[in-house]
Amino acid sequence: MEFFFKPQGVALIGASANSHKGGFSILKNLVTGFKGCIYPVNPRYEEIEGLKCFRSVSEVPDPVDLAIIFVPAEATLAAVNECAVRGIPGVMIQSAGFAESGDTQGKNFQNDLKQIRQKTGMRLWGPNCMGLVDAVHGQVFSFVAPSIWDQGLVAGKVSLIVQSGMLAAGFLIDLMTHGTMGISKACSIGNKVDVDECDLLQFLIEDPETEAICLYLESIVDGKKFLEICRRSSKPIVALKGGKSNKGAKAAMSHTASLSGNHGVVSAAFAQAGVVEADDFRQLMDLGRTLCAYPAANFQGAGRVAVLTFSGAAGIVSSDFIESRGLQLAELSEGTKKDLKKIFPDWMPVSNPVDLWPAIERNGPEVAWSRAFKAVSDDPNVDAIFFHIFVGGFSGKSDISSLVEIARTAGKPIFGWLLGKHPEAREFMFQANQLNVPVFKEIRRAVECMAAVFRRSRYLQRGT
Amino acid sequence: MEFFFKPQGVALIGASANSHKGGFSILKNLVTGFKGCIYPVNPRYEEIEGLKCFRSVSEVPDPVDLAIIFVPAEATLAAVNECAVRGIPGVMIQSAGFAESGDTQGKNFQNDLKQIRQKTGMRLWGPNCMGLVDAVHGQVFSFVAPSIWDQGLVAGKVSLIVQSGMLAAGFLIDLMTHGTMGISKACSIGNKVDVDECDLLQFLIEDPETEAICLYLESIVDGKKFLEICRRSSKPIVALKGGKSNKGAKAAMSHTASLSGNHGVVSAAFAQAGVVEADDFRQLMDLGRTLCAYPAANFQGAGRVAVLTFSGAAGIVSSDFIESRGLQLAELSEGTKKDLKKIFPDWMPVSNPVDLWPAIERNGPEVAWSRAFKAVSDDPNVDAIFFHIFVGGFSGKSDISSLVEIARTAGKPIFGWLLGKHPEAREFMFQANQLNVPVFKEIRRAVECMAAVFRRSRYLQRGT
Repeated sequence: MEFFFKPQGVALIGASANSHKGGFSILKNLVTGFKGCIYPVNPRYEEIEGLKCFRSVSEVPDPVDLAIIFVPAEATLAAVNECAVRGIPGVMIQSAGFAESGDTQGKNFQNDLKQIRQKTGMRLWGPNCMGLVDAVHGQVFSFVAPSIWDQGLVAGKVSLIVQSGMLAAGFLIDLMTHGTMGISKACSIGNKVDVDECDLLQFLIEDPETEAICLYLESIVDGKKFLEICRRSSKPIVALKGGKSNKGAKAAMSHTASLSGNHGVVSAAFAQAGVVEADDFRQLMDLGRTLCAYPAANFQGAGRVAVLTFSGAAGIVSSDFIESRGLQLAELSEGTKKDLKKIFPDWMPVSNPVDLWPAIERNGPEVAWSRAFKAVSDDPNVDAIFFHIFVGGFSGKSDISSLVEIARTAGKPIFGWLLGKHPEAREFMFQANQLNVPVFKEIRRAVECMAAVFRRSRYLQRGT
Repeated sequence: MEFFFKPQGVALIGASANSHKGGFSILKNLVTGFKGCIYPVNPRYEEIEGLKCFRSVSEVPDPVDLAIIFVPAEATLAAVNECAVRGIPGVMIQSAGFAESGDTQGKNFQNDLKQIRQKTGMRLWGPNCMGLVDAVHGQVFSFVAPSIWDQGLVAGKVSLIVQSGMLAAGFLIDLMTHGTMGISKACSIGNKVDVDECDLLQFLIEDPETEAICLYLESIVDGKKFLEICRRSSKPIVALKGGKSNKGAKAAMSHTASLSGNHGVVSAAFAQAGVVEADDFRQLMDLGRTLCAYPAANFQGAGRVAVLTFSGAAGIVSSDFIESRGLQLAELSEGTKKDLKKIFPDWMPVSNPVDLWPAIERNGPEVAWSRAFKAVSDDPNVDAIFFHIFVGGFSGKSDISSLVEIARTAGKPIFGWLLGKHPEAREFMFQANQLNVPVFKEIRRAVECMAAVFRRSRYLQRGT
């Protein structure tokens, strides 16, 4: 599988000089970020973007260990055959028009691919996929328009496997440009004629640049094998299964031509294999970045949470979610209450959730936040800290690095809820992301992620 | 109640020239946006911000129909007394240190306020509140730092009643500066010694500048009256009740000193009175802006949704949510399928969810989106349209005004799911907000809001 991720030379069959075509975009993306050799293949051109263009892949000089194919479905088989003859170990087919089209011709094309794979042993990725984005190495093997990446890729430690094309690209850009998170590798697997979720999952579990894996799947080719891989993984795995409902399953069938099972069964199997389940794309990634930040924590089972807020109301709503999502509101120790009392005005009762506002008014944000963070971090009755912050105005606190340090020293996971003014809120997200602190714009989502950390911790404790 | 919202003259008792004090912020906010007369009151100053400062409210000339008080709790009663003597009909007390403090002194101060209210008939708003923001008239009656509003207020048609201070301000800024929505009036009611949710709800129901009302409440003073007002309201009402859990209720008690009831009972009563319930602050506002856009629709009960997407995967996950939230995926009529077939490549099967990507590639975004919108808008089997959009890149469609027009002409509500690059995504939110189209960044949230529209429609149909 290495040749898909770290090829030395890439041949692009279906390269184009027309900037409206996918065959141009793939080339442009390669030229921008890929450090190895690039060989455009198309008999209609002598040269594209300053690179010599080859009539056929058989003429391409060494090294070439990956071919990306972007020609019409009916011309794909011939191209793959040429790659086989040329001895190229990995082929990524990004063209559409195969089994997902629902017609006989498309299904036949896909069967042809399956046969050539069996005959030759070469690995086929796709068809009907967006390819691969590797943000750590700045590599984009995809037909997605180059302009979309113009703010650069944001590297992270979560890798993604998706049975989807457009979504992968658009979603990555949304996450990256809003500071939500960076990405390690994003793999769009399409119709899975050969390379499937199990191959990629196994690869990413062994990949030193991946610390957590998120999957969006509409079908699982080999459920038993998939669950076995998940069970043995020391890295957190989060999955969103599309096609849970009858209509959703029907839509999934036409989207990538694969059958999906009864969701209740899938869901129970996920839980038993330690797979964390998500119900929405954003939650998928929120859970991924959270479990990447806190992958194998050995916390108290109960998950006793201290809430530090600038708003009594937000503290109350947080308490409601904490109780309803299987966590507990921490009972602060007497020592902690005494410490906190020192920064509060006399009239203010101290309890959890801790409404910091009067302390901020009295001591300024730096002193109030640091002392409160220290007090709850040192409290043996506290397993996790949920802090609420407003940036771009009154609370004054926007650099959380010293707070993160306090909690990290005490070994307590922290989670943030953010309200903020534009553009300060976005800048804060980038900072939090850099510090590897999960921050959310919804209380519900924050608490659901918090609960997932403690659930996974219990799962890991049972397993050992 | 008019004097709270449209006073002719405002006296500010506790005005300050110290820019770190709330008494300065209130004044600065008044000077910035209030068109009537402003009278700072504080014996320590001759003048603040170019305005003559009065020793006492008794010296303030006419007109003055609202006094805002921001002095320590122990000095509040005297100030209110002076206002009574002066014949000022409305007093807004923004200071804290009353019943919410939990101590006897604070409770006594609050009882004193209650007595003076009963004796004089003057209306008291607060204490322990943030006051009032009126984005339509650019008026801020609040101690929140003036710098927070420096990007201006974004006017809208949803009004807000919150039993919270900090949150109201921070939350408004977050919503406004990210283009999520504008606001009509936001009322922070605090300890409710007199003016309560019923008074404000009644006022806002009659307010021509308010089309939907969102409430965050920790307690309801007179449940029967509250529900009766809701039942008679023709405007949509959305409520988030804080303190559902035991711990949450305990926290709520100390926050604003009022008791909260068993949540199961409250929840059932809400549903019977047509109140839409939210579970998170963001959902509260999402439901508010959605029901403001589609307030009293007379849709088919089932809510048959056509999904137009750029991503098969997003279509599938949408289908899952649509089925699980009590809506249906529309069965497109044969005519619609025929129309859509014209913009799709031959190999592409047409069904709902409609994966528009191949049509966009073939016809360009303008043609693909307009024709697809027209086809599903005209389909009698379709009750609502859920469109997915990526802005800042490949889909090319970012001006949706013509699409909105198509759906509006057909009388169909539309809902958007947005992925996008920064800053284009934010600009799109402002545009959607201007067009009064609810757009969301989570599929789950979008479908939950869609379901609320159809639930409310059924509620209204039953009622008539």
